Amino acid sequence: MSDSPFSIELKVRDYECDMQGIVNNAIYQHYLEHARHEFLASRGLSFAELTKQGVIIVVARAEIDYRAPLHAGEECRISVAASRPSPVRLVFSQKILRAADGKLMVSAEIITTAVNERRKPYFPKALQQLLDEE
Amino acid sequence: MSDSPFSIELKVRDYECDMQGIVNNAIYQHYLEHARHEFLASRGLSFAELTKQGVIIVVARAEIDYRAPLHAGEECRISVAASRPSPVRLVFSQKILRAADGKLMVSAEIITTAVNERRKPYFPKALQQLLDEE
Amino acid sequence: MSDSPFSIELKVRDYECDMQGIVNNAIYQHYLEHARHEFLASRGLSFAELTKQGVIIVVARAEIDYRAPLHAGEECRISVAASRPSPVRLVFSQKILRAADGKLMVSAEIITTAVNERRKPYFPKALQQLLDEE
Amino acid sequence: MSDSPFSIELKVRDYECDMQGIVNNAIYQHYLEHARHEFLASRGLSFAELTKQGVIIVVARAEIDYRAPLHAGEECRISVAASRPSPVRLVFSQKILRAADGKLMVSAEIITTAVNERRKPYFPKALQQLLDEE
Repeated sequence: MSDSPFSIELKVRDYECDMQGIVNNAIYQHYLEHARHEFLASRGLSFAELTKQGVIIVVARAEIDYRAPLHAGEECRISVAASRPSPVRLVFSQKILRAADGKLMVSAEIITTAVNERRKPYFPKALQQLLDEE
Repeated sequence: MSDSPFSIELKVRDYECDMQGIVNNAIYQHYLEHARHEFLASRGLSFAELTKQGVIIVVARAEIDYRAPLHAGEECRISVAASRPSPVRLVFSQKILRAADGKLMVSAEIITTAVNERRKPYFPKALQQLLDEE
Repeated sequence: MSDSPFSIELKVRDYECDMQGIVNNAIYQHYLEHARHEFLASRGLSFAELTKQGVIIVVARAEIDYRAPLHAGEECRISVAASRPSPVRLVFSQKILRAADGKLMVSAEIITTAVNERRKPYFPKALQQLLDEE
Repeated sequence: MSDSPFSIELKVRDYECDMQGIVNNAIYQHYLEHARHEFLASRGLSFAELTKQGVIIVVARAEIDYRAPLHAGEECRISVAASRPSPVRLVFSQKILRAADGKLMVSAEIITTAVNERRKPYFPKALQQLLDEE
């Protein structure tokens, strides 16, 4: 993989925090998804456009390690690196680092596949663009 | 574990569906969390009360397998079974089944731990109640 | 309007509560929307189906009065009554009552209209079913 | 009010869009809240800190006009201007403009009040900072 993977910066919004005063676990999955879609966009691919064209990318499995919690108002950096360990698997390795000190808050492996209209997995050519700089 | 684990039933709400017309991946994590908190409640434990008392239960790792997507208006059953594979680990094995036909939509292993005020892991006595019927 | 309007019951989920320990304001709008869509379903109309058929119902204005906050675990009843004060306006009068004591938590007027593909307002015949029992 | 009110810029995230392919109505309330909290921060006030100190700001009423919908990936600017039309009322006038062309998408009046521990309305001195530049 490239030395400096794609990343975006986000600031935690208060409504994303729960009664424990920290970002709710499900919200990190929103963050991770948003970073992946921005990664797609950086390679000229729109998730919304792909969906309209019938290229449905689905998450088959998510492995998420929660190391430390983000609090209201904190900023973080979310990285995305793509790999293709098997013909129809597209795997995104992602990290969420606290912007202030680079501390690792969350790491995740998101295993995805594209499916056709009958939900059969395949690898659309368009997604090759996510890998070609590795 | 008991033959018939704790479970709740939910109906998918339209706002939980995304532009693909299916339940967004992060929403399943909300469903799973809600089922766990209801499981706690069924054993006389309130997540909100525990939090107020300083018993902070955090998710350390989530492994979620997405088998098939739920659509708007569909009903599902979410099961919860707890185990304690190591002294400070409390693991919830969860399944989301489509109510109409019992089809497995999501399975998940949610590895949690309780932390004290300095975020040191420990096993509060109160949580023993989650295991005592095994 | 009918003496006993359509209503649904919901239980507040912990993840819907924010750092103040109460249901976040935006979540009530989700509750209100879900109740409206269930009201449509009770009259044989599916919001998802209507959308697919090109009958797009949009909220033009929302007036929401927050009287008292719901807390984690509380149950509520959400009522819906429809009226048509002008040719292309469909107005939903909604109330959220705490189930335990019937206390009014939220009242709302949701002013909607249906729009065609060029976003021109009109009144689809199908929506007449929402009014015919008045 | 000042000629150029406080504002923030946001980019719509895909998961904020619903099955109609547009930002869900409740999400705009999240956007509006986030902009208000950032406005507070710009005046040296932290919503989270205020809450911890027992200064609970609650929304009493929201009037939201939805003019046109935002789509996935679009950027918007959200403005905030505060006024105090009555002793215990703090009103935020907000607009959401599409960044690309300045088109008005949403306008809102958010009527808030601060409440003490017994939920009695009052006007905390700290909030004066939101008004003093008018």
